[in-house]
Amino acid sequence: MPNKVVTLGEVLMRLSTPSHKRFSQTDQFTLDFGGAEANVAVSLAQWGIATTHVTALPENDLGKAAISFLREHNVNTDQIYFAPGRMGLYFFENGTMQRSSRIIYDRFDSVFSDFSGDEIDWGQVFDGADCFHWTGITPALSANAAKLTLTALQAASQKGLLISGDINYRRNLWNYGKNPLDIMPELISYTNVIVAGITDLNNCLGIEEESDYEKACAHALSNNSSIKLITSTERNSISASHNQLKGMLYDGRNMHISKSYDITHIVDRIGGGDAYIAGLLYGLLNFTKIEALEFATAASVLKHSISGDVNLASLEEVEALVRGENVGKLLR
Amino acid sequence: MPNKVVTLGEVLMRLSTPSHKRFSQTDQFTLDFGGAEANVAVSLAQWGIATTHVTALPENDLGKAAISFLREHNVNTDQIYFAPGRMGLYFFENGTMQRSSRIIYDRFDSVFSDFSGDEIDWGQVFDGADCFHWTGITPALSANAAKLTLTALQAASQKGLLISGDINYRRNLWNYGKNPLDIMPELISYTNVIVAGITDLNNCLGIEEESDYEKACAHALSNNSSIKLITSTERNSISASHNQLKGMLYDGRNMHISKSYDITHIVDRIGGGDAYIAGLLYGLLNFTKIEALEFATAASVLKHSISGDVNLASLEEVEALVRGENVGKLLR
Amino acid sequence: MPNKVVTLGEVLMRLSTPSHKRFSQTDQFTLDFGGAEANVAVSLAQWGIATTHVTALPENDLGKAAISFLREHNVNTDQIYFAPGRMGLYFFENGTMQRSSRIIYDRFDSVFSDFSGDEIDWGQVFDGADCFHWTGITPALSANAAKLTLTALQAASQKGLLISGDINYRRNLWNYGKNPLDIMPELISYTNVIVAGITDLNNCLGIEEESDYEKACAHALSNNSSIKLITSTERNSISASHNQLKGMLYDGRNMHISKSYDITHIVDRIGGGDAYIAGLLYGLLNFTKIEALEFATAASVLKHSISGDVNLASLEEVEALVRGENVGKLLR
Amino acid sequence: MPNKVVTLGEVLMRLSTPSHKRFSQTDQFTLDFGGAEANVAVSLAQWGIATTHVTALPENDLGKAAISFLREHNVNTDQIYFAPGRMGLYFFENGTMQRSSRIIYDRFDSVFSDFSGDEIDWGQVFDGADCFHWTGITPALSANAAKLTLTALQAASQKGLLISGDINYRRNLWNYGKNPLDIMPELISYTNVIVAGITDLNNCLGIEEESDYEKACAHALSNNSSIKLITSTERNSISASHNQLKGMLYDGRNMHISKSYDITHIVDRIGGGDAYIAGLLYGLLNFTKIEALEFATAASVLKHSISGDVNLASLEEVEALVRGENVGKLLR
Amino acid sequence: MPNKVVTLGEVLMRLSTPSHKRFSQTDQFTLDFGGAEANVAVSLAQWGIATTHVTALPENDLGKAAISFLREHNVNTDQIYFAPGRMGLYFFENGTMQRSSRIIYDRFDSVFSDFSGDEIDWGQVFDGADCFHWTGITPALSANAAKLTLTALQAASQKGLLISGDINYRRNLWNYGKNPLDIMPELISYTNVIVAGITDLNNCLGIEEESDYEKACAHALSNNSSIKLITSTERNSISASHNQLKGMLYDGRNMHISKSYDITHIVDRIGGGDAYIAGLLYGLLNFTKIEALEFATAASVLKHSISGDVNLASLEEVEALVRGENVGKLLR
Amino acid sequence: MPNKVVTLGEVLMRLSTPSHKRFSQTDQFTLDFGGAEANVAVSLAQWGIATTHVTALPENDLGKAAISFLREHNVNTDQIYFAPGRMGLYFFENGTMQRSSRIIYDRFDSVFSDFSGDEIDWGQVFDGADCFHWTGITPALSANAAKLTLTALQAASQKGLLISGDINYRRNLWNYGKNPLDIMPELISYTNVIVAGITDLNNCLGIEEESDYEKACAHALSNNSSIKLITSTERNSISASHNQLKGMLYDGRNMHISKSYDITHIVDRIGGGDAYIAGLLYGLLNFTKIEALEFATAASVLKHSISGDVNLASLEEVEALVRGENVGKLLR
Repeated sequence: MPNKVVTLGEVLMRLSTPSHKRFSQTDQFTLDFGGAEANVAVSLAQWGIATTHVTALPENDLGKAAISFLREHNVNTDQIYFAPGRMGLYFFENGTMQRSSRIIYDRFDSVFSDFSGDEIDWGQVFDGADCFHWTGITPALSANAAKLTLTALQAASQKGLLISGDINYRRNLWNYGKNPLDIMPELISYTNVIVAGITDLNNCLGIEEESDYEKACAHALSNNSSIKLITSTERNSISASHNQLKGMLYDGRNMHISKSYDITHIVDRIGGGDAYIAGLLYGLLNFTKIEALEFATAASVLKHSISGDVNLASLEEVEALVRGENVGKLLR
Repeated sequence: MPNKVVTLGEVLMRLSTPSHKRFSQTDQFTLDFGGAEANVAVSLAQWGIATTHVTALPENDLGKAAISFLREHNVNTDQIYFAPGRMGLYFFENGTMQRSSRIIYDRFDSVFSDFSGDEIDWGQVFDGADCFHWTGITPALSANAAKLTLTALQAASQKGLLISGDINYRRNLWNYGKNPLDIMPELISYTNVIVAGITDLNNCLGIEEESDYEKACAHALSNNSSIKLITSTERNSISASHNQLKGMLYDGRNMHISKSYDITHIVDRIGGGDAYIAGLLYGLLNFTKIEALEFATAASVLKHSISGDVNLASLEEVEALVRGENVGKLLR
Repeated sequence: MPNKVVTLGEVLMRLSTPSHKRFSQTDQFTLDFGGAEANVAVSLAQWGIATTHVTALPENDLGKAAISFLREHNVNTDQIYFAPGRMGLYFFENGTMQRSSRIIYDRFDSVFSDFSGDEIDWGQVFDGADCFHWTGITPALSANAAKLTLTALQAASQKGLLISGDINYRRNLWNYGKNPLDIMPELISYTNVIVAGITDLNNCLGIEEESDYEKACAHALSNNSSIKLITSTERNSISASHNQLKGMLYDGRNMHISKSYDITHIVDRIGGGDAYIAGLLYGLLNFTKIEALEFATAASVLKHSISGDVNLASLEEVEALVRGENVGKLLR
Repeated sequence: MPNKVVTLGEVLMRLSTPSHKRFSQTDQFTLDFGGAEANVAVSLAQWGIATTHVTALPENDLGKAAISFLREHNVNTDQIYFAPGRMGLYFFENGTMQRSSRIIYDRFDSVFSDFSGDEIDWGQVFDGADCFHWTGITPALSANAAKLTLTALQAASQKGLLISGDINYRRNLWNYGKNPLDIMPELISYTNVIVAGITDLNNCLGIEEESDYEKACAHALSNNSSIKLITSTERNSISASHNQLKGMLYDGRNMHISKSYDITHIVDRIGGGDAYIAGLLYGLLNFTKIEALEFATAASVLKHSISGDVNLASLEEVEALVRGENVGKLLR
Repeated sequence: MPNKVVTLGEVLMRLSTPSHKRFSQTDQFTLDFGGAEANVAVSLAQWGIATTHVTALPENDLGKAAISFLREHNVNTDQIYFAPGRMGLYFFENGTMQRSSRIIYDRFDSVFSDFSGDEIDWGQVFDGADCFHWTGITPALSANAAKLTLTALQAASQKGLLISGDINYRRNLWNYGKNPLDIMPELISYTNVIVAGITDLNNCLGIEEESDYEKACAHALSNNSSIKLITSTERNSISASHNQLKGMLYDGRNMHISKSYDITHIVDRIGGGDAYIAGLLYGLLNFTKIEALEFATAASVLKHSISGDVNLASLEEVEALVRGENVGKLLR
Repeated sequence: MPNKVVTLGEVLMRLSTPSHKRFSQTDQFTLDFGGAEANVAVSLAQWGIATTHVTALPENDLGKAAISFLREHNVNTDQIYFAPGRMGLYFFENGTMQRSSRIIYDRFDSVFSDFSGDEIDWGQVFDGADCFHWTGITPALSANAAKLTLTALQAASQKGLLISGDINYRRNLWNYGKNPLDIMPELISYTNVIVAGITDLNNCLGIEEESDYEKACAHALSNNSSIKLITSTERNSISASHNQLKGMLYDGRNMHISKSYDITHIVDRIGGGDAYIAGLLYGLLNFTKIEALEFATAASVLKHSISGDVNLASLEEVEALVRGENVGKLLR
């Protein structure tokens, strides 16, 4: 029987300049939908896992289009709530060569950040679920959103789900008077797998180790009994079109390092991290830890070849890349 | 020497579905900039009048693109202020046939609505100006914006400028605790030409006359000594693609009615009213009242053939349409 | 509780030249999905009715895209079967002015026409359903497809569902050695509401009346006890851009005629009939017969303003058009 | 055996703003090729007539693209000469509603206007031909081009071909020191069918009659023994999107008038006159005079539904429109 | 005098997702035409060789568009036959980075695969020809197509033409009950130049050598007296965007190896092999064997920079690349 | 106070094939404006310098669009003159991989090349200016244009401005009977900074040194007392998509060499040299010589990532690249 995964988080409308045009050059925007957690749900749904995404959206044609997008990608949308207010947006200028990509966020005061979630029956949401995934973006948005995350985590924990959290610390998000250290440690205390680099561990768990990732992970694990795995990708940006990428997974004993990929001719790197954690979760539910790490990294690599926030690489494609088969071939 | 006109108001980014697509069908948006008052400035600049638009925009690439747009159309942008915050937006689905056009506004809490304008030296802004144009949208946005409008009107009045105001009453804008009747009468008391239909006169001047436009205008004039002219277009919507349009101008003695136009195969009706008032102001500065009315109506008609918010019909084209020349010809 | 409707039929990929270009001019095709029965399902889902579409599709990325399309529009796709073979296609050149629209079908030997449907548990499919809709296109495709239709009808009949059938006689489809009169009368014998013009009645029920639609309907009803309603639209094509449309509904006593609409600036007439029958079914499930007829005709009118095969007009929009409200307005 | 028609004239590259955009709005141009005489050749080739177009083009990728365009449409290009120099261009803004269409010509000093044609073996060009078609645009370009036209006419006349000439008088073309009356009468003296309105007859044949087209035609015929037929379309421009059109043909005895067409939702009127004369020539080679006139007018009507300079309506489509069949239908 | 080359084979319509989009992302397809043999014809025509392509197409607007495409590229289409039936299609998703390209064929039961070719007068087709080119795709389609190939080969052989065949073995094509070894050896027995890798030699000539290409070629030559040259490209796929390519040519004595090219930023690799064999044939008709090999490889490299199936690199461009001149320059 | 820079030169309309398409493949052109000197003005305006561009344009919608383009990018257009005549054009096919880019110029006999500039009050133009920039393209166009350049240089020199000249020798431009050596030495005698490679020094200053750039620069400086700096970029074209680039600056004592950049995934190399000289001028007005050289090279590198002729990289972006920061990152 297929697994079931629940994700919680804001769905944003992305407005991108086409063909690497600058904001000052464009007279049109390409429309996509995404969000760190919904991107994970779409990846998993793509690979045959039953996924339910929990969020709130404005009750207008933009909110409805966001729901249609999720439904199109086979994500269950029964736990999406409508409320008055605005859609969270971001504007994206896709860089190339030495020129960086740029994002202008316009997500302040969105329906989701004002959403209390009081109407959610978490028991029902998690019924039959194997896994719950959240990210540090949600508690950064508002006190409401932080409380919503906590409520969800407590319910998920009670059901004994595998809980994963992408720490994803972003300084300019935390604007409602709280510091990550006020909020995140409690949320992490319910979490089993965290995606976190050194900066995330420092800012959200107060780990002071600043240069050795393995030592920082060891500290984090020893201080937080819930955490079983800490993972991250390491990206080397030669240019906006050419990166190198590998995955790292610490299990309390070893720091496992995936194959490193040279990824050039990048189409769209947004969502590369979400594709990675989706891959890791898929792997943890189906393979060994080491295989999960390789699957995650390969999934992330393929995401870079796909425009939009979500990873549309199939299970077969990711598996073939792990095996080093069919790379860049012409499949008839 | 050419005239100089000053306009004040928010510049919005418009995101439209292409080719009459529904919001639920599109994967791209066409990008335009506009705003009731800036549209007037662009029209007038197009016709050789020196125009300065006063506004505030976010200090990011979207705000800069808005300024470039105005500069491209020859509007002086020296009185545009940058501030932190968000760009006002609206989403537009262009109707066709029996299907209506739809606008989703996303302008709440924009840079402009939060703008105090304290740094503006109105004396300098109006130096050498002949005319100032405002609309009822600005005072509807916030207490700040209402105060800004009043300050501008007092300065313009002191300089003895011709002042025009497009009442443009929209119920769902007035959200900051004030009623139009608290605010608008004072603003109108500085204004010489107002664009107002019966509903506008009712809601913003308390005129109770509900069915006879001429009588309502007469009431308004007799109660407000500053007002010299009241004008409006009358639009008959047979379908989204086919309207009939004429202009009306009340001068205290007569209700002048322009030629009526059958406008079918409509490309874009947004900004049709702004094109009309721009035409009227151009006409009042250059022609007789009656000629101004005909020029205004013809300008508005041509706007419907042009995509985007601003009217890019040239002086020669509007004048030719007034004369009934070259209508729909092939000019080599 | 919302109604549930089941539809059965082939989903085709449509490849259209953009902007009314001729086949000989285009270097791209716009991609849509549709099919007479699936179009009905999408309309009804759009209006809040639970719909399940039953079909077979090729197990490749084209078939999967077709399913995503239905899911995006909220149609239940649990009863869609994959099989080896090809996707049914049609190429569409959208006419304009006096120039006709052209369709090149390429649906022969598709997965659906070869589909036996043996794996379908019709009892489960119809569980909780109120209505089943089929069309005369399916039995025209192949012996397999005719048998599949019969099986579905028998099951639907046993459950006591409201059964509607769009006769939709097309001479060039019946290529597998059977004549409509061999097949259709039995299928119609299970059907309560039929969409049929005089030609359809003649070819599929052997009604010989050739000029008086009401008399032909009366014959059909008197010969077929299952039939309660016969309906059709009447279209007058002034040009490809300008039609006149009204709906007709015979209930055994009266021929009810809807309001007649002048539809000009037509965007896309494909699916206009499917929008009509969807409207009629919605109406019959929710309103009186007469109201259903008006709702159906208004739905069909609005479909002509929307590109693609499916009608994306909302319930509110159709109802407003029935009331003559908001026609071609700008809704803020 | 199919007929063979030879045409002579410049092929221009057309650069059009898309979707009725103004020149000031566009950041792209749609590329087409055309020319009054080549348009006739393409129409006739489309209908199965062997056509050879004689011209000169620059020996660069633009000139080669022009040749490919003609070859694609089945026009024989063996008599096209390469020479150094520039491609003749024109920029086109397609009007709509009351807004006129605009053309900016950039054809001065093109390869064709400098072309002597000395290398052409006219005997070989006309071998097996039935008809030669020229227009008044060519002799207006340069002394070279006028001489080239004369040489061609003399050769065609010696072979006894049916010669047609579209007078097409355009005041702003005649810039090389010659007046039409210096040049055109001699050219017309070889011509059997002329397309000419009153202005053309006045400016190019010195006919002084100014208001009665039939009388002017009668004068022209009585003064020019070669002329057997004079023809013209009469266009009434209600708007750029809506015209009325009919054809007129004077045969020395009667002024025949075709059916009048209401053409609304116009896509592109460029080449409407060339489609007409192509239709007339086809008709004269295959039908009676009266039938030719109806065929010509219907061909011109259908051209208005097709973007680009050339008429891509098929023989069957034109004939169906003459018969009033299939007008605006959906042909499966 | 220029050479004349005849090619035989199916012309397919290609429908590609734009900008490397996935099938699941696109709402449009780019339209191209191509086919292994027609691609060779277009290349050669591009370089000044008279080419005639022999095929059958459906008598509808899609078939006509295919013919126009060939005519546009200067291929003689007098030997193209219309028949009822469907156009062969394929859908193409252009890969990038590590993501492979994908083709979905939809060519079964096409007009060409059903084509007997009985009406072809091969003596006339080959009149004045120097060379005939076929591929192993044709005999794989159907018994009819295999017989047609044999007939053509016998006629070409009798005329003493240089005969080239691209073995192009594709397992999933051979569906009509025959094995390549039943059919191909006889066809190859008429052929002088074959394009074949080890797999091709194994499957179509029964050569058992599996690892040493030179030895396999030597076996093939010693067993087949007609064969004078065996050639192939060797492609190393680092990613879909980055390949390495070289050509190999065995002449019975030596295995000649061309310069190896690093080809990165690949636009479109479809037709790369056809560009190679076209280059080789051009070279064999005009240069030495060694020069032909280098010309072929350079032609194939340039094809990868051009979208669509056909190679539009000019003679001058290929020759410059062979000499290492102008590589990636800006030519004014 | 910001600096003011004056530039003089033709503004061309660029018509580019989209997506690296060949001229023979495209049915549209992307529209840009540019010109060696105007590109410098736009770069400088982008970075906060007051710029005035002096030129002449046709008084039609194309000329007006060119002015709007400059105004949009904040270049003062008060010194742009309208005259009858044609717009200078060029057609651009953007190469990729080993395929070169191609330009077809169509600038002969343009308004600017015929422009005397008699109406220009150079004293007023240079009022308050710090710098004047010209290129060798202008004197190559016509005797008029050469004289205009000289007049401007004399006036700039009298005002004591920093004068820079990009020699930019192009053999095929000098068509009016003069040799560069007749004209350029005098113009260079007023110039302080020249952009010149060895070929430029040879052809325009008669420097015979042919292989050692430093020695050639030393000769040029010793012979021309006005010249203080000679600069150039060195570009190594691995392919059209991959170049290596560095800047060189000779100051009479040393040849300074900038950091060398590997630039791959090139979007558009047109204007790379103009971005370089703009960067150098900005640097010379604000930084040390060595910093100016690094700024110039980094500016040129970023230009290659931006489509169109002008460099839209911001000051912050260029400075970051000089520091090696943010290269190819995702900036939120």
